[in-house]
Formats: sequence, C-alpha cells, structure tokens
Amino acid sequence: MPLKKSWVTSANSADHPFPLNNLPYGVFSTLDSDPRCGVAIGDMILDLAAAEAAGLIDLADEPMFEMPFWNEFMEEGPAVWAALRTRLIALLEEGSDAQNKVEPCLVPMSGAEMHMPIMVSEYTDFYAGRHHATNVGTMFRGAENALPPNWLHIPIGYNGRASSVVVSGTDVRRPWGQLKRPNDDAPRWAPCARFDIELEMGAIVGTPSDGPITVQDADDHIFGYVLLNDWSARDIQAWEYQPLGPFQAKATATTISPWIVTKAALEPFRCDTPAREVELLDHLKDCGPMLYDIDLAVTLRPEGGEEAVIAQTNYKEMYYSAAQQLAHHTTSGCPMNAGDLLGSGTISGPNKDERGSLLELSWGGKEPLTLPSGDTRSFIEDGDTLTLKGAAKGEGYTIGFGDCTGTVLPALSDPFAR
Amino acid sequence: MPLKKSWVTSANSADHPFPLNNLPYGVFSTLDSDPRCGVAIGDMILDLAAAEAAGLIDLADEPMFEMPFWNEFMEEGPAVWAALRTRLIALLEEGSDAQNKVEPCLVPMSGAEMHMPIMVSEYTDFYAGRHHATNVGTMFRGAENALPPNWLHIPIGYNGRASSVVVSGTDVRRPWGQLKRPNDDAPRWAPCARFDIELEMGAIVGTPSDGPITVQDADDHIFGYVLLNDWSARDIQAWEYQPLGPFQAKATATTISPWIVTKAALEPFRCDTPAREVELLDHLKDCGPMLYDIDLAVTLRPEGGEEAVIAQTNYKEMYYSAAQQLAHHTTSGCPMNAGDLLGSGTISGPNKDERGSLLELSWGGKEPLTLPSGDTRSFIEDGDTLTLKGAAKGEGYTIGFGDCTGTVLPALSDPFAR
Repeated sequence: MPLKKSWVTSANSADHPFPLNNLPYGVFSTLDSDPRCGVAIGDMILDLAAAEAAGLIDLADEPMFEMPFWNEFMEEGPAVWAALRTRLIALLEEGSDAQNKVEPCLVPMSGAEMHMPIMVSEYTDFYAGRHHATNVGTMFRGAENALPPNWLHIPIGYNGRASSVVVSGTDVRRPWGQLKRPNDDAPRWAPCARFDIELEMGAIVGTPSDGPITVQDADDHIFGYVLLNDWSARDIQAWEYQPLGPFQAKATATTISPWIVTKAALEPFRCDTPAREVELLDHLKDCGPMLYDIDLAVTLRPEGGEEAVIAQTNYKEMYYSAAQQLAHHTTSGCPMNAGDLLGSGTISGPNKDERGSLLELSWGGKEPLTLPSGDTRSFIEDGDTLTLKGAAKGEGYTIGFGDCTGTVLPALSDPFAR
Repeated sequence: MPLKKSWVTSANSADHPFPLNNLPYGVFSTLDSDPRCGVAIGDMILDLAAAEAAGLIDLADEPMFEMPFWNEFMEEGPAVWAALRTRLIALLEEGSDAQNKVEPCLVPMSGAEMHMPIMVSEYTDFYAGRHHATNVGTMFRGAENALPPNWLHIPIGYNGRASSVVVSGTDVRRPWGQLKRPNDDAPRWAPCARFDIELEMGAIVGTPSDGPITVQDADDHIFGYVLLNDWSARDIQAWEYQPLGPFQAKATATTISPWIVTKAALEPFRCDTPAREVELLDHLKDCGPMLYDIDLAVTLRPEGGEEAVIAQTNYKEMYYSAAQQLAHHTTSGCPMNAGDLLGSGTISGPNKDERGSLLELSWGGKEPLTLPSGDTRSFIEDGDTLTLKGAAKGEGYTIGFGDCTGTVLPALSDPFAR
C-alpha cells in the first residue's frame, strides 16, 4: 500500500509521522478551545468536534467528539471505528470536494496542547518480551532461574495503577520509597537511586467484554496502540516485589504517547510472533499475525545537553501479542472495559543496544552507558529527558506514533520530615 | 457511648445491626425507584434523594444523593461527612421534630435491592495479616521462608481488578484457568478445583491525594469500611503468581457488603495494632489506634443445606491498619482517588478455627472441614453459599455491616471449545 495523498500537503512526505495512511486519534486543546477529540493529519489537527458541528461527520444522534477522551467512541465498536476512518479519508484525501468545508476545522499542531487521549479504566502491565525477561531474570534470580516455569505458557501480567498514567510531556518526579540496598542491614526511607524507563507498547481496549474471549476476539476488541514508558524504581522494586509483585516501584508514573494509532493504520505491518519454544494451550494459540513491525527507539537528553539514541529495537521482538495478553486477561471471567490499557512489557532485542531499559543497558549498573557528551549513565539522573519513539515504515510512507517523553525532576525534600 | 434511640423503633435493640449509632451508607432501588443513595436505620432505609428533595438535607447547591454511588459525596471531605451525620442524627433521633416529614422518605429494607455503594476507582489488595501470611507462606514456600523479608517492614500489597468488584448477593461463577497441579507434567486449561474465599475488610478512600501522605492523613482520607471477600482460585494462583503476583486467580470476583460503615460509627471501637516485632520506619509508624475491634465470621451453606459457621476472628488481628496501608500506597507519589478500595488482606486469628480462608482452614486440602451435615470441604463446592459477617459490639448496641454473601455457580462448559 503506497502513500495516500492528502490536500493537507505537509502529510505527503515519506517520513512524516502523520500521513493520510495514519490518522491517529488524540485529545487536544488550544488557547481558544477546551480539550476535545482530534485527528492528526500532517502538521495539523482536524478538530472533530468542529467537524461534527459543521455537519461533516455524522455517526450518531448525539455529538461524540466534543469531549476530552475517546472512551465513548471506542465503546461503539469496530463498525463505527471503520465508518469514521472511511469518512476521514474522504474528507482529507487529495481531490476531496469537502476541502473548503474542512479547512476551517484544522488547527496547527504547533499551537495545540495534547492531553490524555483516553480515561484509563484500568492499567495492566505484562512481562512478555523474551529478551527482557531473560535479562532481568538473570539479574534478579540468576541465569538458572531467569525464565520462570510459567513464562512460556502464559503472558505473565500484573495489575498496575491507572491513576498514575500521564500523557507525554508530563514531568516525572523522582520518588521516595522504602528500599534496602545490598549492603544495608535494614530497609530505609530514601529517594530512588535506580530510577529507570521501560520501553513498551500500550494496547487500548475498545470494546468491553464480560467473560473469556478468544485470541481472535481479543484482537477485534483492541482499538489501537500507543507508546508506553513504564517508569520503574528498581531499588524500591527489588525490596517490595516478592511475593506479590511490583507495587510502589511502578506507581509514580506511566507515560503514554498522545496519539492512538489505530489497528487499521497498522494493518499492513502485521507480523507473526516468534517461533513458539513450547506449544501454547489452545486458548492462547496464535491464529494469525497479531504483532506489528514497528521500529522503536529510546533517547536520553541530559539537562541542557544533546539527545542521544540509547536503544533501538522493534515491537515484533515480543513473544506474546497484545491479543494473546487480552485473551489471557479474560480467562477468569475478568470484565474488560473501554479504556483499559495493556502494557506489552519491556521490549528488548537480542543485542545489547536493543535493550529497552537502563537496568538491562547498564546491566544493573555494572556497565554504565557512555553518552556522546562523555557523561555516563547507569540509571536516570535528575534533569534527564527520556523519549520513546516509534514508527512503522511503509513503501513511501511512515506510520508514526508521536514522541512519548518525560523529564525527571529531582526528588522533593523528605515529604515526611517533621 | 450507649445506644442512641431513634423513633424508627426497630433500630433500638441491642443486637440490631443498624441502630442510630451506625447509619451506614448504601445504594438501593425499589420497584418504584432507580438506584440512589440511602442510609440504613433499623429495618428501614432513608431515601436520601427523597429527603434532599423534601428539603430535609441541604448540604450543597446541587442535589447530591439522586445518584447510584457515593463517590461525589465522599470527595467533599470530612467536614461534609460530619455535617451529614449530624443532620441524619437530628432527623432520626427519638423526639426529633422532623419525624412527620422524614417518615415518607423511609423505605422498608425488605423491599429494596442493594447495589454497589461506590464506583470502585481502583482496587488494591493487601497481605497484612500476620497469621494468614505465616500460614500461607508456610504452605507455599515452607516454614523457613513463610514470612518474606520485607513483610514486617511494609504492608505488602498488589493492585487488583476494580472491574471485578461486585455487591453482596451476586452469584459467582467458578472460573476456568491455566493451572498445573503438582502431578501434572504440563499446565492445562481446566475449571478451578481449589476455589476459595478470603475474609477481609475493605477500606474506602474518600478524599483524593496526589503525593505522599502521613499515616494520620491517610486515616483522615478514609471514608469508611465494608466487608470484603476476595474470591481466590488457588490452583490458578499457584501456577501464575511468580514472579509478578496474583492476576487471574483474583480477577473472577471480589464481593463487598452493601453498606459502608463510616469511621464515625466505628470511632468507639478503635484499637491499636499488635506489638511491632521490628520497629517500623517513621513514615509508617502507628500514631494512634487505627484498627477496630470488629467481630468477624464466615459461614458456609451447601446448596439446600444448613448454614454453618466455619471461622470466627476479629479485625484487630491485622498487623497493619488501613491507614498504614494507604500511607504506604502513596509513598511513590501514586495518586489516590475517591472510590479507591483497599482490601486489608485475609484476616486470620492465631487458632485454627479463626482462619479466614479455606486454604488455611483445610491446610491446603490436607485436613478437610466437616460441616454439621457430615459433608466435608477442602475448598468451595458448586452451590455453596459463603457469607462474611461483621459486627462491632458496643454497650447495648451493635454496629453491623450487613452480610457479604455469594453463591458459587458451576463452571460453564469450556468457553473455548470449538
């Protein structure tokens, strides 16, 4: 599928993240307008509330887009999702007879502020990348116990904290926590000294379910994907995570990119999961290509310094697809809702420069990274800006995600000092 | 504090769960009315929407109670909570001059259906009972590793699934799941064969927070308490829970009692946590009595059979208070919201008949319980009704919680069979 041309000419370049092929969904505001639904096209945002008010979009009896989240639209299901996309392409494609009416509904992206695109109903984080699980398992439990016995049979996941999910651009405050360093006799209350990122994709559930669903159904229930950085306090995590899993180590913030890239835009990039090492049980078996070929990168920019790529990998390195994760999530009858966010788990490739966390990149701090400035990093330093980038590369076009970025602020002085 | 008398005379007996001293908050509907806020008094429910419409309650510019949850009221904070309680006592106490006006707002409890009293924002489950943690740890990891190294230093918790929380009376369907029994070579897909209860108290967060809060602040942020049964699929749990904690084993359902008993009603029953075995770090230290002396019981009724008490214990057996749990929950900066539900963790006493789960009562199935009928139970059988009961006993009065009950239905036939 080649580049589809739009009369919004900035969209028509091979490396622009938001061509007509993409049409990702976000929530934006301007000096003149409250947060509302919009779609990215080139350097512009189509204000969907305005387009709806102008009669250009007419999907429902009631206005759907003058609201600061996509949840209600997502609940409408795949037929309505397809209808909107078809309509948007008709409005924005080169030669559209609607151009004159649509133009007043466009807002320059440079003058817009992006907000959370969804109300996160609940947030689940998985641990479904083989290379990451092996790396971390080796560091935390030794090479012999690196991959837990269940790992090749189920996509291991745990519930995260929806209230801590923030949109790209939100500063992240280094947390305090209870931690016990290897040489400490007793735990203590201290600022996190091993603050980290996790490079992930987030899958957004669109259609609710109320009982076990198949992998195929699960794929149909997913609305789209975002980049996701699961900020992680490794020293807090090491002390707290046994026996019931990560808790405060993961509750400071999780950042997502502002634009939801739909499954429809990613369709040409579907690919299979890697070969199964052991056969999955029937209800989790692959039933079609449900991963995506998406190039991913992590950059680090020290305060006042230069942005440097510290890792590059691809979403297709995952062992389990989001559809498999969602199917597993429903096995017990767990009700799923529009706006549920599923983090893929950290995405690392087989090579050292393909690792999606500083924990892995610096091998637990034993092999610090050297930045172009000559500075070194084992974990995040105050003032560092970490950015995830993602793009699927088509023939003559790009499906971009928009950056997923956050700057780490110094810890506050002891919040409990008297 | 003695029994406070009400002109609703059914409330004036020493063992009635809902005297004027209690005034718990719920959401009810009748054949004539949609779900709305109400308060229990004796055998009646005061319809707060009706009372507000009649001008008997006037706390805000907009009506607060003609809605099917208490979240918005809870967000108003302790001063408004106190104002409502003061007003309700004035309306309902013996000799109130409002009796004639209030009477038309009363609805017989026998004709009302109870609903979830809150929209659960997020659900967190703790593991903060010493006897339970020791029992389960011994069974899962051996006596030497029973209590994890962090257990005496932090209230261990994990995020649960808010979408699975249901109100008392909701049937619970036995789940399927992936599990691997001790003699199995490989995991398989099967109905849960070790379905269990967990006897817990649920603390409901009223006031939001957005950063670390002290134990005292945390106590102030708690709106009230419910009984909570964290249904648990032990065979699924055993296979899935390492390394990142329970997931599908806990996602079938969590049942709460329908009436929120406020902190104000429980005030006379405050008591200290047990002696600390190791000193807590300052930010988690007790700063006043924040547990409560509440008698708890679990009953089991086989289908068509007789209800039998299978365990009795007390909330004061907990090692950590809900305030300590909430304070710990915020340490990383995790935002907390009105409607967040914190499960205490299973409450077991030191003796065998004080254990709050069948896992402990039957010691992993090795010592089945014998019911009065002669039937035995290691875990829950289809058709069993499990009920949690709770009451604080004052001088001449009782603060009751209302039952927290659910009947276990047989597993469906394989939801993935083709």
